Amino acid sequence: MATKNKLFLGLFVHSKALNELEYLHDTAVGVDKEGKITFVERDCAEKKARETVLPQLGWKDAEVEVVKAKEGQFFFPGFIDTHIHAPQYPNAGIFGNSTLLNWLDTYTFPLEVSLSDLAKARRVYTRVIHKTLSHGTTCAAYFATIDVPATNLLADLCHARGQRALIGRVCMDEPSTSPANYRDESAEASVAATRESIAHIRALDPTHTLIRPIITPRFAPTSTFPLLVQLGALAAETTLPIQTHLSENRAEIALVKTLFPPTVTGAADDSYAGVYDAAGLLTGRTVLAHAVHLTTGEAALVARRGAKVSHCPGSNTALGSGAARVRRLLDRGIVCGLGTDVSGGFSPSVLEAARAAVMVSRHVVFMGEEVAGEDREREKLSVEEVLFLATRGGAEVVGLEERVGKFAVGMEWDAQLVGLGVVGEDGEVVGDEDGGDVDVFGWETWPDRVAKWVYNGDDRNTKMVWVKGRLVHARK
Amino acid sequence: MATKNKLFLGLFVHSKALNELEYLHDTAVGVDKEGKITFVERDCAEKKARETVLPQLGWKDAEVEVVKAKEGQFFFPGFIDTHIHAPQYPNAGIFGNSTLLNWLDTYTFPLEVSLSDLAKARRVYTRVIHKTLSHGTTCAAYFATIDVPATNLLADLCHARGQRALIGRVCMDEPSTSPANYRDESAEASVAATRESIAHIRALDPTHTLIRPIITPRFAPTSTFPLLVQLGALAAETTLPIQTHLSENRAEIALVKTLFPPTVTGAADDSYAGVYDAAGLLTGRTVLAHAVHLTTGEAALVARRGAKVSHCPGSNTALGSGAARVRRLLDRGIVCGLGTDVSGGFSPSVLEAARAAVMVSRHVVFMGEEVAGEDREREKLSVEEVLFLATRGGAEVVGLEERVGKFAVGMEWDAQLVGLGVVGEDGEVVGDEDGGDVDVFGWETWPDRVAKWVYNGDDRNTKMVWVKGRLVHARK
Repeated sequence: MATKNKLFLGLFVHSKALNELEYLHDTAVGVDKEGKITFVERDCAEKKARETVLPQLGWKDAEVEVVKAKEGQFFFPGFIDTHIHAPQYPNAGIFGNSTLLNWLDTYTFPLEVSLSDLAKARRVYTRVIHKTLSHGTTCAAYFATIDVPATNLLADLCHARGQRALIGRVCMDEPSTSPANYRDESAEASVAATRESIAHIRALDPTHTLIRPIITPRFAPTSTFPLLVQLGALAAETTLPIQTHLSENRAEIALVKTLFPPTVTGAADDSYAGVYDAAGLLTGRTVLAHAVHLTTGEAALVARRGAKVSHCPGSNTALGSGAARVRRLLDRGIVCGLGTDVSGGFSPSVLEAARAAVMVSRHVVFMGEEVAGEDREREKLSVEEVLFLATRGGAEVVGLEERVGKFAVGMEWDAQLVGLGVVGEDGEVVGDEDGGDVDVFGWETWPDRVAKWVYNGDDRNTKMVWVKGRLVHARK
Repeated sequence: MATKNKLFLGLFVHSKALNELEYLHDTAVGVDKEGKITFVERDCAEKKARETVLPQLGWKDAEVEVVKAKEGQFFFPGFIDTHIHAPQYPNAGIFGNSTLLNWLDTYTFPLEVSLSDLAKARRVYTRVIHKTLSHGTTCAAYFATIDVPATNLLADLCHARGQRALIGRVCMDEPSTSPANYRDESAEASVAATRESIAHIRALDPTHTLIRPIITPRFAPTSTFPLLVQLGALAAETTLPIQTHLSENRAEIALVKTLFPPTVTGAADDSYAGVYDAAGLLTGRTVLAHAVHLTTGEAALVARRGAKVSHCPGSNTALGSGAARVRRLLDRGIVCGLGTDVSGGFSPSVLEAARAAVMVSRHVVFMGEEVAGEDREREKLSVEEVLFLATRGGAEVVGLEERVGKFAVGMEWDAQLVGLGVVGEDGEVVGDEDGGDVDVFGWETWPDRVAKWVYNGDDRNTKMVWVKGRLVHARK
């Protein structure tokens, strides 16, 4: 993908641990033509990098592309959106006062079904890929639709545009909940269509350098149990990842209990997570979106299976689903990332999801009864923690933690260059660069600047974006 | 201020009632040189306006400035920020995991005290006025600092820049809670300094066409009771408005009970609202910021006195203060507006406050125990409702409902021109205009477009801003 070796110079910020950001000042990072990081050299100005590091690698100075973070800019790992519905993007912000189940019927299914029109699908998918890239999303786990050609088109467009993606053809076959015009004819037909899409993606990107298929039962309520079981078997056969929704909304949970009694699933109880487990869908490669109302038993089961959680705070608030207690999931060792969940979530920005995660964690503090001795303040997520979830956490959720999420030798260069606005002595912003809504007065520490970015930043602050070493977005 | 009569043409959107927006398509609005709306003519294209309406008014065509909302744009009333601390703006986004009282000591007081340096104050105030105008805030109720020259400078800058403002010199004299270097020497000194600032503003804008003083006890915990009483008397004497904080955080409320027992205040109980009432500060011209944890008795008292509430959802979440139950306040007939509460709130945008108000109202639904027969969904605020709070509600909170907040003959032209992005057939945005983060595909209804603006809009969508007929901001 990348045609030249690249040398990045300046400040690099990334997560060292859940609650710790590392600030690598005056650092040089080398990225080879394959998009891999070959060195990370601290205290290394341009001169030293050119005179000492490049010769050691055998990189000829003139053939290296140099990108410098200016004063006030920094490199940050690309964001990973662990849950987003590409076809729903045109409905971002359109949900009224609906909640999950009537939102699906009123807004979502009619739009999704309309994207079997490939011209419309191309228009929408082109836009959502551009939009998410411009917000620094270098990798997204997409739900597409049930339509195979449109799903394959989404894969093609991501591949061409250079966005790392997991592409899921949506499976749904339960007649009582899926619309008549938007439903697989049978479990077998659903699996066959899924295989078709998998085959297309394998042909497109045989080694999954950028694009990989992901097995995608929409969620239990729109699936027959045989479909869930067959998709579990397909996942075992192919070792592909799985994505679905879990325990988003109370009415949904009640519906699952009705549709999937233990007499149907053979599970020990009627828990929602237990349905997926009984179908073989709860694995170490499974991305569970939401997990808002998990019982203690379900959380223990999810942890035991090593399944991952995509926390979608914006969506959960907007649709009135509830407030997920992320601290409790993390305390159990459940790996969590962030999802925008467009269009249950109204924003395509993972930075906005990070901000929403901070806010929702504060609402968790307000909720429920006070228990003596309980430190409720612990529920709060910090800026450092939500940035971890947005990058390294997300990478682990989608099974790419060995490739992306931080700056280290051997990792791939999925990154964004972030720039903030600088307020001059006259109160006006200095320079030509659009600092967006983030104003830096100059006396702030770097952690404070990063906090300003998290709270008031947007796509204007994301100046350049690379995936696997390739420049995929540059702000005009 | 305005030098020409103006004719505005196109779509106008404003609040007709709490839960109803009115869409005036193909409408012409005339604004005279004083900034007053002289006509609102529906079904009136440019030709008709020029040939029929202007001659009736005696306005010469050539001398009229014409501003047209393009396809996809609309005029909307300017936003009113009913609670914002101008000196705290540089700390927007910097609060860590603090809560109100330690946030004040750690972040806020040190910054506020530093603004007695007038060069620094000029830099910060210039920026905050520019920033809020660029977000469509045509009127703001500002807390300044205790420093009189810096407070007067804020008034001067708002006046020069053309932003409508209420300017409050902050009063605080309680030694146990106010820092030694940031405290009035006595109640008398505090009142004298307030009079000084009032006199300055009266000289600057004798008829309060744009700027008016507002009596500003910071809040009960940093005030002695004699100070509160003397400020109550000053308000009665001058008939000026009052602004302060009420019932933001539980630790604050406990502190008020300690500092202001009925033996001190002579009140019937130790309620927080009762303290202000006993001091004569609870009036029909009082703006109470927050009001998160009001008891039923306090809410009834606030309603009886006709005091108004500035709802600050972003701040209340960020500082972990709580979730205000706005529906209950509205149900009691208490007038509510929105406040950004920079920098307890991280965003200077009233649109963001509107968005946060929607989100917090959903968290209110989650909170507490379910009561049989109670319709918890009623707590939700709609897009229409939060836009009412941001405009007409805010106008009433600051006592300007006869002058601003909607488009009608006799009102003043405080308005913004809003433009959204248009997605073309190829998935790229059409045209040169920066639609920011709002993508319109073309099939959306106008209410859906307005919802998209509320949820994904920012200052990029605010193309032009006028106060009292004067153009005070135009996006480059």
